Amino acid sequence: MTRSHTPKSLAVLLRARMHPDSIPSPPPAPSPPASPELDPSARPAAASSVRHWLHASIAAASPPPAALECFSDGYRSLDRGGRHEILRSLATDYDVPRARVRDLMRQYVSVSATGEGGDEQPGAEREEGGAASALYRMERGLRDALRPKYAGFLEAMNAQPGGLKLLAVIRADLLALLGEENAPVLRALDGYLKEKLVTWLSPAALALHQITWDDPASLLEKIVAYEAVHPIRNLIDLKRRLGVGRRCFGYFHPAIPGEPLIFIEVALLKDMATSIQEVLLDVPPIAECEAKCALFYSISSTQPGLSGINLGKFLLKRVIDMLRKDMPSVQIFATLSPIPGFMQWLLAKLASQIKLAETEMQEGNSIEGASSTFRESILFPEEEKMIHSAIDQVNGKQGIELLQDILKSSQWAKSDKLSAALKSPLMRLCVRYLTRETIRGKALDAVANFHLQNGAMVERINWMADQSEKGIEQSGGIMVNYLYRLENIEEYASSYSATGIIHTSPNLS
Amino acid sequence: MTRSHTPKSLAVLLRARMHPDSIPSPPPAPSPPASPELDPSARPAAASSVRHWLHASIAAASPPPAALECFSDGYRSLDRGGRHEILRSLATDYDVPRARVRDLMRQYVSVSATGEGGDEQPGAEREEGGAASALYRMERGLRDALRPKYAGFLEAMNAQPGGLKLLAVIRADLLALLGEENAPVLRALDGYLKEKLVTWLSPAALALHQITWDDPASLLEKIVAYEAVHPIRNLIDLKRRLGVGRRCFGYFHPAIPGEPLIFIEVALLKDMATSIQEVLLDVPPIAECEAKCALFYSISSTQPGLSGINLGKFLLKRVIDMLRKDMPSVQIFATLSPIPGFMQWLLAKLASQIKLAETEMQEGNSIEGASSTFRESILFPEEEKMIHSAIDQVNGKQGIELLQDILKSSQWAKSDKLSAALKSPLMRLCVRYLTRETIRGKALDAVANFHLQNGAMVERINWMADQSEKGIEQSGGIMVNYLYRLENIEEYASSYSATGIIHTSPNLS
Repeated sequence: MTRSHTPKSLAVLLRARMHPDSIPSPPPAPSPPASPELDPSARPAAASSVRHWLHASIAAASPPPAALECFSDGYRSLDRGGRHEILRSLATDYDVPRARVRDLMRQYVSVSATGEGGDEQPGAEREEGGAASALYRMERGLRDALRPKYAGFLEAMNAQPGGLKLLAVIRADLLALLGEENAPVLRALDGYLKEKLVTWLSPAALALHQITWDDPASLLEKIVAYEAVHPIRNLIDLKRRLGVGRRCFGYFHPAIPGEPLIFIEVALLKDMATSIQEVLLDVPPIAECEAKCALFYSISSTQPGLSGINLGKFLLKRVIDMLRKDMPSVQIFATLSPIPGFMQWLLAKLASQIKLAETEMQEGNSIEGASSTFRESILFPEEEKMIHSAIDQVNGKQGIELLQDILKSSQWAKSDKLSAALKSPLMRLCVRYLTRETIRGKALDAVANFHLQNGAMVERINWMADQSEKGIEQSGGIMVNYLYRLENIEEYASSYSATGIIHTSPNLS
Repeated sequence: MTRSHTPKSLAVLLRARMHPDSIPSPPPAPSPPASPELDPSARPAAASSVRHWLHASIAAASPPPAALECFSDGYRSLDRGGRHEILRSLATDYDVPRARVRDLMRQYVSVSATGEGGDEQPGAEREEGGAASALYRMERGLRDALRPKYAGFLEAMNAQPGGLKLLAVIRADLLALLGEENAPVLRALDGYLKEKLVTWLSPAALALHQITWDDPASLLEKIVAYEAVHPIRNLIDLKRRLGVGRRCFGYFHPAIPGEPLIFIEVALLKDMATSIQEVLLDVPPIAECEAKCALFYSISSTQPGLSGINLGKFLLKRVIDMLRKDMPSVQIFATLSPIPGFMQWLLAKLASQIKLAETEMQEGNSIEGASSTFRESILFPEEEKMIHSAIDQVNGKQGIELLQDILKSSQWAKSDKLSAALKSPLMRLCVRYLTRETIRGKALDAVANFHLQNGAMVERINWMADQSEKGIEQSGGIMVNYLYRLENIEEYASSYSATGIIHTSPNLS
């Protein structure tokens, strides 16, 4: 919050792309707590001073605001190692009080056994007023006891000014720590914190705000910093994304003012765009009254600590509702979305098939029979032929090996010949990737899963829709339109989450 | 939301003082649900149709928004009896799944017994990764199972537009029902719902907004309707409370726009006011730059369904912070507060003492010894003398009987003689009531308890500070200044809640 809030800082940010919440380095040493409980001879190191405030907060019946504030300031000033030390202490030293849980369970079983029998017998209980009261009291007590001891600390921190933001930072650090050290006790902390964050970030607590060029530079610089899908290149680009024929909406929480938790960028168009270039660059915006399609072309969340909490679903819903009310002429609500996992999946697939082929060859299968013994045929014969003829040098490699070679460098997209040869197989494989490749019953592609669970369908894929280096590397330049059909959103969302059905357009090639 | 939002409606409201959220009467019959699950021959009555939507919402893994909306509309259209039927069904039909809880407990005890011993042994657990994981999973499962089955419904309703407001209405209805029918299962529902409301209404989710004459009439009419302490008499009164030398701040939740959950009225004064007349009527406001004291003279909450949830504490804190920043000349933060329970307490005390005296007389105690055998002496002899001489007719009654007679009508305040005679005993007894009469370790007076738990001290009581009929009846016209000393707020709040210490000014007569 100490950065200057002038457009200049925006411009600097556009060059530097710094992250507002990065961990300080080197950490300024926090002053030791002036508390008599600490041994004054043992000059406390930074993390141990923060642990002191953690303990002071958790030990009190209701954590004193001053202790929470000291913890908060101290934690922010710690380096990575210090923060991890605090997180481990939080998770292990203030875990569920198991002895108490077992005590309460023994009492509960003995009481609820007297009321024996099936599931609930509310009628009988209501007559036996005293016993029923005791049962409910015990259940409440058990619910409380089963909460880790850090539960009250997290609640109090959330109520503190700046607390929600700190908790998001803590969760981001925790996720990073879990990447290195996947301990059950840390996972339990993460699970509990995530559960609480979901409650605190209920859509009821979030306000939708349209972000415009009239907003403070301090807000706009965050849009620039956090735009994750199509980086904002300069101030003109930013201004266009907030100008005529465009919309940008953010979801704000009152406790984190001036910074959206997630934001969405919309283009008002005559029809679903087939390439991101149309949206970002080439085409001047149409008159808004002529718009028939609201195209969602970028959704970015700003808090890594809120990972796994689906704020986008409600944001999309509210934005659609708002646009419908404001612009009755808009009938099509669709996205132009990246396919972040396509190339990675395809290269892994190619590698495993090539390996399989090699193994089979070594085991003495005849060369002429090789392609038929592959478990899957990735390329059709005519596609293989196209690729062969597009390559100048002939080196006796199989089609899938050639494809692997070509895809490993993103240079192929600059060659018309190669590009033409790859179009048919890549488009076909991309449809397969989007509509049939799943993991635990959900679409393998994270963006696909996001839109499908929100009730969209896979409408169309578009060749050379994102020719940026990132676009070619991620998805061979292919982008996808997900379509939100208002009359089907609820139905599609629930059938996808219940049975994993991926709804697709009949025209999908 | 259908009322017209012009100042006219404000004026009408000032006469009618209608309540925006009152239960409809007679209830419009809701259309029966067009659902095939219901027997079409049995034309459903209103409440049973709402029960249908309740069931449809709770039965689904994630409640369909359409069902929640139908429930919501249906519930609002029900009359008192219908709403109570729904509440009973909610509480009893969707209670804690006890059979499942017992199953999980058996599993838990068998697993956690193998890891035997004391409270937590995180070190050992971290090595025994698998067992620890299972334990944490079970604890999470138990926490979930111990939630009533309506938990998910309440969560989903809160996420729904208008849902938080509906839940506040539901809780208000539930509190009314509990007044008639104090069943444990209903108390458990109330306890759970209150717990959730506390989380959802965390101060982090609330926005502070200064309410001014520039705000929409739809908001201002709510201020008029909900002002609970000193009713707003006309538009001039309202305008003055929002004008120069005055402030009004509300706490808003994004899910309930245009309506504060609680609001506070502040007067900027040279010193702590000694009567509400100064604040509301007589004295023209001073130049704000001369203000030394911010006097909180009214705090009203608007949602009966949020009863018992202390939003005022955080509101006061934030308002004090804001005023300190904006107006450095203001050094005194105090209230001018009613003492709603004083007369009720005093009359009960008098009645019990009179009864005691009668009993003792009947048991043959000599008249001359009577006053010494009373358990408490309520009046000092000279006070008794004053009262006797202020009364014209002499009827041989004791002082406390006379006092009772006088206080039972509020007419005494109009007589200078009576008023002068009562001042000394009422002021003395009022100090005793405020500072020594407690219930479960808390001040008996609800307003006193509110400010003491927020960290205030009892600074001064003021004779004839509220000469309205209500003021005379509630507290003999006495009002109290609670003082928030910035340097002591936290300390006083925590010592009061820990040990019930009531901090008072040394000058308190």
